Amino acid sequence: MSGNTFGELFRFTTFGESHGPAIGVIVDGVPARLSLKAEDIQKDLDRRRPGQSSITTQRKEADQVEILSGVFEGVTTGTPIALLIRNTDTRPKDYSNIKDVFRPGHADYTYFAKYGVRDYRGGGRSSGRETACRVAAGAIAKKILLEKGIRITAYTLAVAGIYAKQINFDHIEQNMVRSPDNDQAKLMIEAIESARKERDSVGGIVEAVVKGCPPGLGEPVFDKLEARLGYALLSIGTIKGVEFGSGFASQHQKGSESNDLMVVKNNKIRTKTNHAGGIAGGISNGEDLVMRVVTKPPSSIAQKQVTVNTRLKTETIEVKGRHDPCLCPRVVPVVEAMIASVLVDFLFLQRRHSSSTL
Amino acid sequence: MSGNTFGELFRFTTFGESHGPAIGVIVDGVPARLSLKAEDIQKDLDRRRPGQSSITTQRKEADQVEILSGVFEGVTTGTPIALLIRNTDTRPKDYSNIKDVFRPGHADYTYFAKYGVRDYRGGGRSSGRETACRVAAGAIAKKILLEKGIRITAYTLAVAGIYAKQINFDHIEQNMVRSPDNDQAKLMIEAIESARKERDSVGGIVEAVVKGCPPGLGEPVFDKLEARLGYALLSIGTIKGVEFGSGFASQHQKGSESNDLMVVKNNKIRTKTNHAGGIAGGISNGEDLVMRVVTKPPSSIAQKQVTVNTRLKTETIEVKGRHDPCLCPRVVPVVEAMIASVLVDFLFLQRRHSSSTL
Amino acid sequence: MSGNTFGELFRFTTFGESHGPAIGVIVDGVPARLSLKAEDIQKDLDRRRPGQSSITTQRKEADQVEILSGVFEGVTTGTPIALLIRNTDTRPKDYSNIKDVFRPGHADYTYFAKYGVRDYRGGGRSSGRETACRVAAGAIAKKILLEKGIRITAYTLAVAGIYAKQINFDHIEQNMVRSPDNDQAKLMIEAIESARKERDSVGGIVEAVVKGCPPGLGEPVFDKLEARLGYALLSIGTIKGVEFGSGFASQHQKGSESNDLMVVKNNKIRTKTNHAGGIAGGISNGEDLVMRVVTKPPSSIAQKQVTVNTRLKTETIEVKGRHDPCLCPRVVPVVEAMIASVLVDFLFLQRRHSSSTL
Amino acid sequence: MSGNTFGELFRFTTFGESHGPAIGVIVDGVPARLSLKAEDIQKDLDRRRPGQSSITTQRKEADQVEILSGVFEGVTTGTPIALLIRNTDTRPKDYSNIKDVFRPGHADYTYFAKYGVRDYRGGGRSSGRETACRVAAGAIAKKILLEKGIRITAYTLAVAGIYAKQINFDHIEQNMVRSPDNDQAKLMIEAIESARKERDSVGGIVEAVVKGCPPGLGEPVFDKLEARLGYALLSIGTIKGVEFGSGFASQHQKGSESNDLMVVKNNKIRTKTNHAGGIAGGISNGEDLVMRVVTKPPSSIAQKQVTVNTRLKTETIEVKGRHDPCLCPRVVPVVEAMIASVLVDFLFLQRRHSSSTL
Repeated sequence: MSGNTFGELFRFTTFGESHGPAIGVIVDGVPARLSLKAEDIQKDLDRRRPGQSSITTQRKEADQVEILSGVFEGVTTGTPIALLIRNTDTRPKDYSNIKDVFRPGHADYTYFAKYGVRDYRGGGRSSGRETACRVAAGAIAKKILLEKGIRITAYTLAVAGIYAKQINFDHIEQNMVRSPDNDQAKLMIEAIESARKERDSVGGIVEAVVKGCPPGLGEPVFDKLEARLGYALLSIGTIKGVEFGSGFASQHQKGSESNDLMVVKNNKIRTKTNHAGGIAGGISNGEDLVMRVVTKPPSSIAQKQVTVNTRLKTETIEVKGRHDPCLCPRVVPVVEAMIASVLVDFLFLQRRHSSSTL
Repeated sequence: MSGNTFGELFRFTTFGESHGPAIGVIVDGVPARLSLKAEDIQKDLDRRRPGQSSITTQRKEADQVEILSGVFEGVTTGTPIALLIRNTDTRPKDYSNIKDVFRPGHADYTYFAKYGVRDYRGGGRSSGRETACRVAAGAIAKKILLEKGIRITAYTLAVAGIYAKQINFDHIEQNMVRSPDNDQAKLMIEAIESARKERDSVGGIVEAVVKGCPPGLGEPVFDKLEARLGYALLSIGTIKGVEFGSGFASQHQKGSESNDLMVVKNNKIRTKTNHAGGIAGGISNGEDLVMRVVTKPPSSIAQKQVTVNTRLKTETIEVKGRHDPCLCPRVVPVVEAMIASVLVDFLFLQRRHSSSTL
Repeated sequence: MSGNTFGELFRFTTFGESHGPAIGVIVDGVPARLSLKAEDIQKDLDRRRPGQSSITTQRKEADQVEILSGVFEGVTTGTPIALLIRNTDTRPKDYSNIKDVFRPGHADYTYFAKYGVRDYRGGGRSSGRETACRVAAGAIAKKILLEKGIRITAYTLAVAGIYAKQINFDHIEQNMVRSPDNDQAKLMIEAIESARKERDSVGGIVEAVVKGCPPGLGEPVFDKLEARLGYALLSIGTIKGVEFGSGFASQHQKGSESNDLMVVKNNKIRTKTNHAGGIAGGISNGEDLVMRVVTKPPSSIAQKQVTVNTRLKTETIEVKGRHDPCLCPRVVPVVEAMIASVLVDFLFLQRRHSSSTL
Repeated sequence: MSGNTFGELFRFTTFGESHGPAIGVIVDGVPARLSLKAEDIQKDLDRRRPGQSSITTQRKEADQVEILSGVFEGVTTGTPIALLIRNTDTRPKDYSNIKDVFRPGHADYTYFAKYGVRDYRGGGRSSGRETACRVAAGAIAKKILLEKGIRITAYTLAVAGIYAKQINFDHIEQNMVRSPDNDQAKLMIEAIESARKERDSVGGIVEAVVKGCPPGLGEPVFDKLEARLGYALLSIGTIKGVEFGSGFASQHQKGSESNDLMVVKNNKIRTKTNHAGGIAGGISNGEDLVMRVVTKPPSSIAQKQVTVNTRLKTETIEVKGRHDPCLCPRVVPVVEAMIASVLVDFLFLQRRHSSSTL
């Protein structure tokens, strides 16, 4: 709980500040003999990187990953895999005006209150930039899962109240907002662009679906599948809520409605409905895992705001730098990465039961 | 991550099945010289125990706690505190008819899929009965927090869509449903009783507020305050979603609305609004912590339901036993306990910074 | 690191004071469907219990174990196994004279310095009595290992400088001191009885051999097999040193002597010698694991000793109570238990490599 | 227990292979506002680096450390500190002849047995080169301890049976072997050089003394001070045994001899003797901590040795590369580093007791 390590058997530890020399991650617990190339990781990093479209921040970071250890002759060796990403487009001077001021909605004040000091360059460690390391680690986790037929897909379900009306996985990478509905995506993008023009920002909902998850993952009573997934997802800076299956809507259901009745299909126990989001008693039941998170509107907006400085005086601030008007499209791969890392942990843990065939 | 231990510095480990001889918990990491009596713990156990009112299960468990270690001459010694609760009103025979059948909405199938065996007596380990141990451990955590002026209050915000219209802490223990609004509580109770008469069940929302939480708690980037609280709360069996501050509603806000502007009051930095729920960048900011969880309608309903048995055959089942038609009132102390245990962990962790005065 | 939990995947948490109502342990991570009865555990507890022979303490504790959870219809269910041992022959009054005095060689002063308070009844938590819980947990670990053909045998190699001259496993349980050499055992017992007559105590060496350990256990670089075994063994109160294979003697070897040359036997890679104690690079190599620990002479001696009290005044003390003149025979099952728990952890961990057949 | 992370509150995670592009470490849990420069770390790295004298390996690595994160304007920020050391003098070709052969005494075979693959370039991850990362992390730990007046000193007590006859801390850095006795150091160096001429290697004993350690560190019952120190020290590749205070010699003492009698000096409780090595009941007692480890003779010797290859055939091998004939002088800073990291953990943990003034 030192704060910068996640996971138990599949465990990664990250470092790095937004405008320091580099960020990076050590991934420990990767099984030996997994084929792994930098491109396997780069692919997901490219989905998260800044500057990828007109509705994301225009900071230009190539986010090129370098593998420093743990891979030899194209396969993993079972030793820790270190991944390094140099920061190339740093502009610490953009932030010199906030050195002694706390930006509203940001972690500036809380970091100062906690540590008595802060790296004010672009939020330092509190910047969303650290999530690149999660995506890098998650790319490895996803590779491990894929070998077992487990596939995670996240997408922007809603932006500023505009919801996808269909869930078509093929659409997701076809529009800038990563919506599974190309038509609604247009409206979402309009909302984002409109917010940016008003020097403002918007929030949204990202949904994730895991297909091919075998029954038996999750470790009651404290490490229930929802608990570890919630832990993983709520550690992403912008996320302020998470729900599984029917989630918050289930308060409007009766037990007779929300109970997923069981049936036998292809000689397997399945459920007719999936209000539980694929999890009962904290353990996967073989149905799709379904969860949603809310991303709050980004705090960095190009408006003048009244705030407080380190001398406890009121001050007007205008946040410079290059920012995202909506985080959903870039959060999508981060959500996938965190889910993947949780599932790999549970997959490995389940192997302690000798009856396990996972 | 063996599943039955929670917390790092303040760490508790629970055991026990619903209809076995006993349940219990070992609490490790309690500072020495804390005054502690069984009554300190019993008080919260009584708020969770079955049979406390007409809208909870009628199982009669006194839930009397026995301190087996760690307390000497009225104070804690710094060694592990073991708490034992004997099960007295067990009726394993109530469950003989479900021995080979999987109850819909329950963990019967997933436990079987995971372990290849299950204790079918009242759900065994998957029963909500284990939460008594959390409440017992949490009572100690709350005592530690109270010495620092930190006070946690949870209550039933809504049942089946009926919301409290005021938040009056004095009301909470004055009505059976633990609502902060005695008037709306009547409607909630009606909804619960009506569901029970229809052999059905309802869900609800429990909200928790932490007053007196100092700034600086939470350990970015993975052990953000929301992340650990979400982890803790989502490990409670019935809970399928959690949100902080404005939570899911924040997708309808603009950044200019959701940013909590900072002001100075009494020489302290405070925020005008509290959309963030008292947490920025994963660290407490000194405002009230505010969070909500949804409890799904209990799966145990006295209706005939079609389901599947261990031989993969369809079967009709009628779940016997004594059950709760709505879990909110009994979940309230469990929510408080889990929040308390997280906060104590962070309080202790923060002391590694020598500037800390916590 | 709260101090009372050991292990990761196979994890146990203990509680209890020497003269409190009970001691006990929760064992988490035991695979489901292991056949388990109280007798399986009792057998090892009987090898550790006080009063078993004329050279151990005469405290009369039956050390009867009660299984409170985790076992149903004779097999483990995958949920935590709680084991309770009531203290029956407590004599707190024996210790009233040491309430304000620190016994030399004991943990009295350090517990007081650490916690600001102590349970002075028989050493409270610092008593060797807590090791009964380790033996109980270890008995389960040994059962898991036995299914894989891994067998741990510990014995008293030396007492007060008197060494076994042969290692005959059949002798071990045939003599009170648990030596693998019935002849030398007589001399060891004489030394122990002679020390007791002089109101004194003696130390010794316990050696452990693990047969059937497969290659591949151990997790470099920090969780090397020696590291985790050393951790486990040095957590036993009386032990002040541990060594593997040639151990401290290896400073008198040349590299050309200490290198274990490799050969092929029965189509397996084996070593000609075993100076490494079955471990190379922190990983088991398929040879017998061999390690030794030293137990210091027990601090409780029936002599008048000059010491200091809580008011920092000099005082003469005569320690009452019933004590062991040599700990070797009772430490033997504790050593086996700790080794077993480490090996089960590594066995489970190794399964994350899909090539693993363990 | 994924193997490449050590510590709890002060936690470091290392990566890197001997002949890969770089090695490094992420140090998490360092308190904010500690003054820290690369030179603070470089100083200890220079004591460990290869090629520092005629009795160490002649590999030329500058071991220049680069701070990538966690330090801003000369002080730590409380966020993870990443340290990178590029490998510059790699000669993977030196190892092409061992690609399919297992070197005797090395981890070649066990890595292959564990992972099914290995990085054969200079031992890959199993090389002692990884200990540079420990030294880097430990340098930070030592700085934290120094602020509290805790000072760790390790030195070569013996080489090949030749012991220091005096313990003079001033001598340690005055001779190549890091002995506290310049006279005996000459004999030790002769023994090492003589071994090298014979294409052989020798072992030795490193002793460490901690001055200024306050009473109260250590967390019974499993995280006793000896247990965590032993864990830390036995994780260093070359070390096959560890002992505290009188250690293995205590089997030759009576209880009346080994009990350290207590006295009052300067209003503090002290002990007359220090057979316990400063630890009673697993907790520091305020005396010097004293421990010793044995380093085995290095396995890499320039002799022809008969061994086995991956095809299970016998083969003669001559290990090339540049190697240490005795590891003691370079192990000294590694031992200090590991001890330091353990003590910082315990120092922080002790702060959970509100009575603590540490």
